Amino acid sequence: MLGKMLENVRNTCPLIHNITNYVTVNDCANILLACGASPIMADDEAEAAEITSICGGLNINIGTLNSNTIPSMFLAGKRANELGHPVLLDPVGAGASKLRTETAWKLLEEINFTCIRGNISEIKTLASGAGTTKGVDADTADKVTEENLGEAVAFVKKFAAKTGAVIAITGAIDIVADSEKAYCIRNGHPMMSSITGTGCQLSAMTAAFLTANPDSPLEAAAAAVCAMGFAGELAHARMTELDGNSSYRNYIIDAICNMTPEQLEKGAKYEVR
Amino acid sequence: MLGKMLENVRNTCPLIHNITNYVTVNDCANILLACGASPIMADDEAEAAEITSICGGLNINIGTLNSNTIPSMFLAGKRANELGHPVLLDPVGAGASKLRTETAWKLLEEINFTCIRGNISEIKTLASGAGTTKGVDADTADKVTEENLGEAVAFVKKFAAKTGAVIAITGAIDIVADSEKAYCIRNGHPMMSSITGTGCQLSAMTAAFLTANPDSPLEAAAAAVCAMGFAGELAHARMTELDGNSSYRNYIIDAICNMTPEQLEKGAKYEVR
Amino acid sequence: MLGKMLENVRNTCPLIHNITNYVTVNDCANILLACGASPIMADDEAEAAEITSICGGLNINIGTLNSNTIPSMFLAGKRANELGHPVLLDPVGAGASKLRTETAWKLLEEINFTCIRGNISEIKTLASGAGTTKGVDADTADKVTEENLGEAVAFVKKFAAKTGAVIAITGAIDIVADSEKAYCIRNGHPMMSSITGTGCQLSAMTAAFLTANPDSPLEAAAAAVCAMGFAGELAHARMTELDGNSSYRNYIIDAICNMTPEQLEKGAKYEVR
Repeated sequence: MLGKMLENVRNTCPLIHNITNYVTVNDCANILLACGASPIMADDEAEAAEITSICGGLNINIGTLNSNTIPSMFLAGKRANELGHPVLLDPVGAGASKLRTETAWKLLEEINFTCIRGNISEIKTLASGAGTTKGVDADTADKVTEENLGEAVAFVKKFAAKTGAVIAITGAIDIVADSEKAYCIRNGHPMMSSITGTGCQLSAMTAAFLTANPDSPLEAAAAAVCAMGFAGELAHARMTELDGNSSYRNYIIDAICNMTPEQLEKGAKYEVR
Repeated sequence: MLGKMLENVRNTCPLIHNITNYVTVNDCANILLACGASPIMADDEAEAAEITSICGGLNINIGTLNSNTIPSMFLAGKRANELGHPVLLDPVGAGASKLRTETAWKLLEEINFTCIRGNISEIKTLASGAGTTKGVDADTADKVTEENLGEAVAFVKKFAAKTGAVIAITGAIDIVADSEKAYCIRNGHPMMSSITGTGCQLSAMTAAFLTANPDSPLEAAAAAVCAMGFAGELAHARMTELDGNSSYRNYIIDAICNMTPEQLEKGAKYEVR
Repeated sequence: MLGKMLENVRNTCPLIHNITNYVTVNDCANILLACGASPIMADDEAEAAEITSICGGLNINIGTLNSNTIPSMFLAGKRANELGHPVLLDPVGAGASKLRTETAWKLLEEINFTCIRGNISEIKTLASGAGTTKGVDADTADKVTEENLGEAVAFVKKFAAKTGAVIAITGAIDIVADSEKAYCIRNGHPMMSSITGTGCQLSAMTAAFLTANPDSPLEAAAAAVCAMGFAGELAHARMTELDGNSSYRNYIIDAICNMTPEQLEKGAKYEVR
């Protein structure tokens, strides 16, 4: 069933509007193309809502947010809501500065998100203001482990219920949940954290999966998370002794580019709780 | 003769000022270096014209344009005109928003472009306001095919006459024309459209070819378009089963880096109409 | 001893705040991860000083500086000074425009830099206003050669004494010096100049080395410079006939990712003057 989600992306080629950071934007564009979607980046107030209108879905990522792009996030988000387009929030670095935390909170107040994807510290910050962050990475104290997984799932479902959004927390174990059902996903490879922007890339790709599968946001988000983790596994298997994080980055996007729905169906490792 | 155009880039190492989007800017810089040119990116009003003055050519790309960078495009463009430097316009996404369409039109009014390079939908938008776009990609309805090629060539020559610029439309078949002569180019590979920014890269590289060949703007632009397409072929021939769009991106820039004038001369596939 | 500097980066994983250009920012982030550090990019006035506070070191790079990011450089720099964090300046293109030259001078006046890293033309511009630049590359007339090395070392030591910073000038021969001691480094490969941003990447990495080695800024900077050059050698040795500057870019970051302190210790080629 998760394979079908990818198939729908490839068949419908959704156009995704991204308001995102300048650090990982190129990789976000290339992974959208790799999964079968089409990217457009536009962050000026004068065109943000209009560009949203011609797209199928919207990806808002607050990394390198600034006084010019923040108003565009609100304009585009509200327009997407009016049009019934899926909207994803990636609260990069929420908890690391007041600007990021408060912008994320305000976005949550004014925009209905279909999905929120972040690391555990960022999501805890959104939920309660109580998360800690190590810059844009999750704090070790927050990490989801086999021991605290039950508790983490309960937290995620509760936050999903509160926001009405599918919540996707990624880390060693990923949790993708709505208020009732959680996918606990064990795809991925530890080396993925040595590349900048695997989270941003996943968010962009998740927006595409949501757009191509409007009736199944939970399964769509879970499929995107599995696909990214599985790509991390395939890419790692391909590495030679001299390859490092930069080649690995290319190989992950390559793996998404070559992944078939059947492969994803077989390669996805999850349990439902 | 097209090989000579590349040779002149390698021999004169032109410095190219780029006011361009933050999505594909790194690839633009690397492909400029790959072809033998030298890139500088500068988009603040306070330095745009001054940076243009120390360069040999200017590349204006309106992807991710914003209220800070638009005035810089005009300042730099006008200075380049005063100095007689070649100026290229890449109207990324013209037709996708009023901001893009109107900025492109205003640039056409106030600046004399040596070359305008875009997809068919963008160029139609510039020419008549009648093009449609699918975000930053050409609309299928607009596409140049063997059937409508004659008509497309006539359209391009007419727009070249109107603007005084060499017009380069890229797609499955590329057309590069001034008011009298058109190169119809059949280099390239369909997979190039699965990479973000091959168009932006080509625009940057074309600016370098124009700068190194000031007396032959048509041949210079045609050579850049052939080089990019030929690089797409060479890069594709090199791909392994596990390679996808991200490795392909690297291989295309690599192919430009290694391309000799002789190879380009032999590999260029075009007819003149 | 230089190997120890790298070991300390890997053991302490310093979080580095980067206010840098949008051309090479992704490579800066990936090379920071490759060497064992963690990057965060944030350039809005509203969060710049706060982000600096949660980091261990700060990297200020003036490529694509603009009216929004310049005030953030000052705010972050001053906060880093208050906190005793290492601060590095990369004066990209100083000498190419008044904006760049004057911003760099003003930064030098108001902020105490631990290290300044640039090409010889940029550093000459900072020192005396007398350097010439070819855009963002060093002017040939300025280049450090075996013939003028003694003179260049004296100049660098003098500028180090004046600024109180470690000065790192990179080129065919690199000089890293404080007021009393200079490392003349002969690692590297000429092809490194065919990639955009090897200088920016080195600056980011140097900030990480400084942060992990607070008591040895000179050795830390020298180790980073040796590591980058050595990575350029290792990466070049790996290239196949079809590889060009884009693959080379990946291989350099890969080489940093895989470099052990022992390898660096052995591979570093320098003399002390």
